Amino acid sequence: MLGLLASPTWAQPAANPPGNAAAPARTGSPEIGPDRRVTFRLSAPKASEVLVSGEFMAGSKALEKNAEGVWSATVGPIDPEIYYYNFTVDGVRTLDPGNPQVKSGSTASTIQSVLEVRGDRPAFYDGQPVPHGEIRTHWYQSKSLNRLRSLSVYVPPGYDRDAAARLPVLYLFHGANADETAWTRLGHVNLILDNLLAAGKTKPFIIVMPFGYGAPPGEPGAQGQNTALFSRDLIEDVIPYIQSQYRTLTDRDHRAIIGLSMGGGQSLSIGLNHLELFSYVGGFSAALNNGGDFAKTYAGLIADPAATNRQLHLLWIGCGTEDSLFTPAKKFSEFLTEHKIQLTFHPSSGAHTWINWRHYLNEVSPLLFQ
Amino acid sequence: MLGLLASPTWAQPAANPPGNAAAPARTGSPEIGPDRRVTFRLSAPKASEVLVSGEFMAGSKALEKNAEGVWSATVGPIDPEIYYYNFTVDGVRTLDPGNPQVKSGSTASTIQSVLEVRGDRPAFYDGQPVPHGEIRTHWYQSKSLNRLRSLSVYVPPGYDRDAAARLPVLYLFHGANADETAWTRLGHVNLILDNLLAAGKTKPFIIVMPFGYGAPPGEPGAQGQNTALFSRDLIEDVIPYIQSQYRTLTDRDHRAIIGLSMGGGQSLSIGLNHLELFSYVGGFSAALNNGGDFAKTYAGLIADPAATNRQLHLLWIGCGTEDSLFTPAKKFSEFLTEHKIQLTFHPSSGAHTWINWRHYLNEVSPLLFQ
Repeated sequence: MLGLLASPTWAQPAANPPGNAAAPARTGSPEIGPDRRVTFRLSAPKASEVLVSGEFMAGSKALEKNAEGVWSATVGPIDPEIYYYNFTVDGVRTLDPGNPQVKSGSTASTIQSVLEVRGDRPAFYDGQPVPHGEIRTHWYQSKSLNRLRSLSVYVPPGYDRDAAARLPVLYLFHGANADETAWTRLGHVNLILDNLLAAGKTKPFIIVMPFGYGAPPGEPGAQGQNTALFSRDLIEDVIPYIQSQYRTLTDRDHRAIIGLSMGGGQSLSIGLNHLELFSYVGGFSAALNNGGDFAKTYAGLIADPAATNRQLHLLWIGCGTEDSLFTPAKKFSEFLTEHKIQLTFHPSSGAHTWINWRHYLNEVSPLLFQ
Repeated sequence: MLGLLASPTWAQPAANPPGNAAAPARTGSPEIGPDRRVTFRLSAPKASEVLVSGEFMAGSKALEKNAEGVWSATVGPIDPEIYYYNFTVDGVRTLDPGNPQVKSGSTASTIQSVLEVRGDRPAFYDGQPVPHGEIRTHWYQSKSLNRLRSLSVYVPPGYDRDAAARLPVLYLFHGANADETAWTRLGHVNLILDNLLAAGKTKPFIIVMPFGYGAPPGEPGAQGQNTALFSRDLIEDVIPYIQSQYRTLTDRDHRAIIGLSMGGGQSLSIGLNHLELFSYVGGFSAALNNGGDFAKTYAGLIADPAATNRQLHLLWIGCGTEDSLFTPAKKFSEFLTEHKIQLTFHPSSGAHTWINWRHYLNEVSPLLFQ
């Protein structure tokens, strides 16, 4: 009876959180062929136009309608990865209703269907038969924001078994229109770290993923003041709360700060202006929206480059060359180099996607706390 | 600067998980008026028909198009609650693209937009300024299913502070086309328990929420064998794993089993056939799909009613009178009464909704482990 379940552990669809989740339908949409060509289908007899667009292709492709009113299109072959896509039905962007895997978000454009194409072997972000850490979700009262908020924490395998060990902490931020669950649901943060730890490629550390909005998007005050509000919550509430709840190493040598997109702008501006708190700083596809004013924003950082370089154990900036944020990232790295601040600038292929951010986490984690 | 954030803690939109999340747009869709009338809007100049349907109304309502191609309709007033709804655009069911709050699921029909209408005071499921427990997500290797799976655990406030205390455990199951995150995201399980505990209305206990599919939906073997597969995972993997990870009371007097819908069918059939393991059993809107064969399925239970009643500290069955599963639930309660098995049968208004399941959890929790 159980034979049908004896597929390799990793050969499961991505889940929400990764691990469980429904298998993609064998027929229906999306249907992934053995050659990794993918067919999308939608039953919409009344519609006059159906398009598919996604991270696996440039632009969009029109589906064609059959006599039963079922629209379909085949694309690919598509490389093994996790992609997001949408249909557009008569001008209205929709999910693929045949696909249970949905990437949630907080705007229409960030709610998308998920296409996971598997390769012949497990990926670095797949669940594998190794020891697993946990994700712990906390609700805390932010005094600085006068608001109940939640945050996610990754603890490495065996955290509860060694009651004496204190661990370093990475503070890891999500992007715009997302929340503190994004790094787990979409970034597979726990599975990536579990796999690195099992391979002996990284040291164990705790990862704290707070909610990156000082005020929820849409509320007045969120615009413009967001990083200032979030910074107060992080420094006055989140860090003390974490240090009261977990066995952490609380010196700057054991505290890292990294974020993606909006969160990358936050991690760079907070981290590089608080070297008394952080010694490892990273920005993934960072939103450097004050591009022209680096010298003002980072005046303290560049005042004494030798002192800064002694304090900064790592400054890592990665961005996809097809990302609209690539130019500011490159400019920022050039600004730092001009001012003799040591950094790793890591251009990669691709655009503003979770594909890059999972890879970046996998590349940076082994560099932390060495 | 922070004055605008000084609204009461509970006056936040429902989140994913509850706590953070975006505020509903002040204009756009849905717009909740001060009289609790709600306006839905969709920009779709090319569409020829747009409908809205949701738990706050019977049937559906057509939106009307203005000169700019923006469709709108106003409904209500609507009572304070959390509701799910959808648009239908030219026959294709869609989310409300203006609304960031999405209820995920694993079929097209369970992915819906969320409308949260707030009352003048916090609800029992709202985050309030009380001590908060945690949700811990574990990844474990199920030996019985040969598969990596994840499960969620609620630990009450202060669990880590008293290293000696052992706690009872409630095993709590989700419904069809959902996963182990549903009771947190949609059921607000942690906030309901935090509020009950702060009011002194319930004893502290751990809640374990496993993934209820023995095989993921869509895989061959899921159909028919699901409860048998899930039961093996629960008894052979989940319970031993939890007892190895948490300070639990491991006797039957301190173990409860409750589920909703599909999970209610599971909790009743597993719980009532394993009184050596469970002494508190509940079914919320339970899927009793073997309705005609109660005498066979529950032969052991009814063989010695006096012995059964001594062992069962609570048997609680709740269902909405507008639920299509109400008749089987009523029949099952009558079957039990005929066989002199003591139970609480709790009919309520409403249908097959999370509205009822949140209420049921709030009503049943104080009855556990007394």
